Amino acid sequence: MNCHRSLSFVRRLHNIHARKLLYSDYGEPSQVVKLVEEKLAAPQNNQIVVEMQGAPINPADINTVQGVYPIKPALPSVPGNEGVGKVLSVGDDVKNLAVGDIVVPLELGLGTWRTHGVFNASNWMKVPNQLGLAEAATLLTNPPTAYRMLKDFVSLKPGDVVIQNGANSACGQYVIQLCKAWNLVSVNVVRNRPNIDELRDSLSKLGATHVLTEEELRSTSLFKSGELKAPKLALNCVGGQSGMEILRKLEPKGVHVTYGGMSRQPVTAPTSALIFKDYQLRGYWMSRWSKENATNPERAKMFAEITDLMLKGAVKAPAHKFVPFKDYEVPLKKTLDMKGFSGNKFIFTFGDNVS
Amino acid sequence: MNCHRSLSFVRRLHNIHARKLLYSDYGEPSQVVKLVEEKLAAPQNNQIVVEMQGAPINPADINTVQGVYPIKPALPSVPGNEGVGKVLSVGDDVKNLAVGDIVVPLELGLGTWRTHGVFNASNWMKVPNQLGLAEAATLLTNPPTAYRMLKDFVSLKPGDVVIQNGANSACGQYVIQLCKAWNLVSVNVVRNRPNIDELRDSLSKLGATHVLTEEELRSTSLFKSGELKAPKLALNCVGGQSGMEILRKLEPKGVHVTYGGMSRQPVTAPTSALIFKDYQLRGYWMSRWSKENATNPERAKMFAEITDLMLKGAVKAPAHKFVPFKDYEVPLKKTLDMKGFSGNKFIFTFGDNVS
Repeated sequence: MNCHRSLSFVRRLHNIHARKLLYSDYGEPSQVVKLVEEKLAAPQNNQIVVEMQGAPINPADINTVQGVYPIKPALPSVPGNEGVGKVLSVGDDVKNLAVGDIVVPLELGLGTWRTHGVFNASNWMKVPNQLGLAEAATLLTNPPTAYRMLKDFVSLKPGDVVIQNGANSACGQYVIQLCKAWNLVSVNVVRNRPNIDELRDSLSKLGATHVLTEEELRSTSLFKSGELKAPKLALNCVGGQSGMEILRKLEPKGVHVTYGGMSRQPVTAPTSALIFKDYQLRGYWMSRWSKENATNPERAKMFAEITDLMLKGAVKAPAHKFVPFKDYEVPLKKTLDMKGFSGNKFIFTFGDNVS
Repeated sequence: MNCHRSLSFVRRLHNIHARKLLYSDYGEPSQVVKLVEEKLAAPQNNQIVVEMQGAPINPADINTVQGVYPIKPALPSVPGNEGVGKVLSVGDDVKNLAVGDIVVPLELGLGTWRTHGVFNASNWMKVPNQLGLAEAATLLTNPPTAYRMLKDFVSLKPGDVVIQNGANSACGQYVIQLCKAWNLVSVNVVRNRPNIDELRDSLSKLGATHVLTEEELRSTSLFKSGELKAPKLALNCVGGQSGMEILRKLEPKGVHVTYGGMSRQPVTAPTSALIFKDYQLRGYWMSRWSKENATNPERAKMFAEITDLMLKGAVKAPAHKFVPFKDYEVPLKKTLDMKGFSGNKFIFTFGDNVS
């Protein structure tokens, strides 16, 4: 019976029109990334065949193809790190997954920009079938980054205050939603812009307690008046002056965590703040945490908590644009043009893949 | 008998020509600090009478009188934080000290620039009688700062590497000596200067493994060649470019501790170093540690270890100049003129006090 299914599946595999993006040299994605067809092999032992359903195009994916990211895959390589797919077939030794499961990668570098792939089952995690496509496709990096930064540096209890800049970044939006879900007060700093009221409104609807422009942060009396406690945690994805301004608001022994550098200015702290206020400047990189915690049960617990909040509607993916995989050239050109984090994220869809 | 001794001591107290420095307004020490005489009271309960033997003049003492230090004593106040003295008399409840003990203050702000004082016994610690005058008089701040910075941020084992700038500062010299005593490798960065060879020689004699100028640090192949492991700990009392250069040498997850800011430039770190190398930027202030660990047995253990190293000759006080207390106006004017940390520290002596 098992054998029969396998044979029938092998016949079906031959009818799948599998395609993937591939690059053999580092360079501009629009130059070096090509669409190629491939024949899928039947899954061996602990392998699974995954039919991709969604895969986002992140700035780090583009930087990786350009060869300017700290992770440099061996070439040729299939780009794409995040995504969601459905298990079409499993090898004989696979225990943790079954045909029909909706799965997301647990590792970076598996190459998600493809219609189908044969992977090690241990690198994929089952997620609830009802999870939204965008939420599932972008589950690997930003939601756990926000989650861990709120959990791992200081002990926060309901009512405690967190301050962040670049609050409208993808990660920033998850910080806002997790703070709301956990009854933390979030002070959200954004750059001023023509449509600031619209942005303020949209972040408030996500759950932001306060939204301030950089200028407003410098003159606000929120902290002096005692209306707000001093933050215990500052999350910085901007650097330079902005990173320093959120540091200054921290309570003594507060922790400042850098996870991005949009301004391209270094992180700067007054000497006196380090010595007399005992501030800590730290950094966070999701890839390192994932690598160091590959076998830590805390990882599954975290993803369960995040997907639970998503299913309840308490946490949702930031604005995004679905783009059919066949139109892959569009987001390759546009992703890095989207200034800062204000643009919508592109997510490949694969609805027309199986012929 | 006890009563008889007390009465005789009260008579002796009346013959002591006790003097102290005092300021009633914040301002330039040479303007606001006055020498005044006082009558000593007999020690009550847990009090002791201390006859001072030595008390240094630190930049922080001058800044405190100026009112520009984070610690602002109630006025009028006797300046001076460190020192060493001999117990002349003890109150009936004093258990930890006896007449004739050599003692150092355990708290800042007791006011050590005086010939004699009546103090709470709990604020003083007995030290070995054989301890050198300069070592004892300056025991409270710099030796434990070096000790704690080497102990509290990373776990160092023999052969591990520590890098520091401002290596010829008072604290830097203790770092060098403790590294030597604990078999740690010290990389010591100093500014270039006309007498650089003399300085290099003097730090090497103290136990410095390597002495480099700021320029040499930028071009050294010591780390690239594998001759030296990457440091786990960087100690920064300069800030700005120098603080960043020692940060760059750290191994991943290395810790950078700021305890001074000689350059008056803020502490700066590349965003990528925080994110991808997981460096930590921390600060250290001895006063905070002392306050938080007033009842921690670790404090007595630390001072015992330090004084033991001093008695063995493995750790000694940096260069200093003794100045009789009656000439107090000289160091008040000169201490802040001594550029950086290169000048000798002044230490008051009180040899001519008891009439």
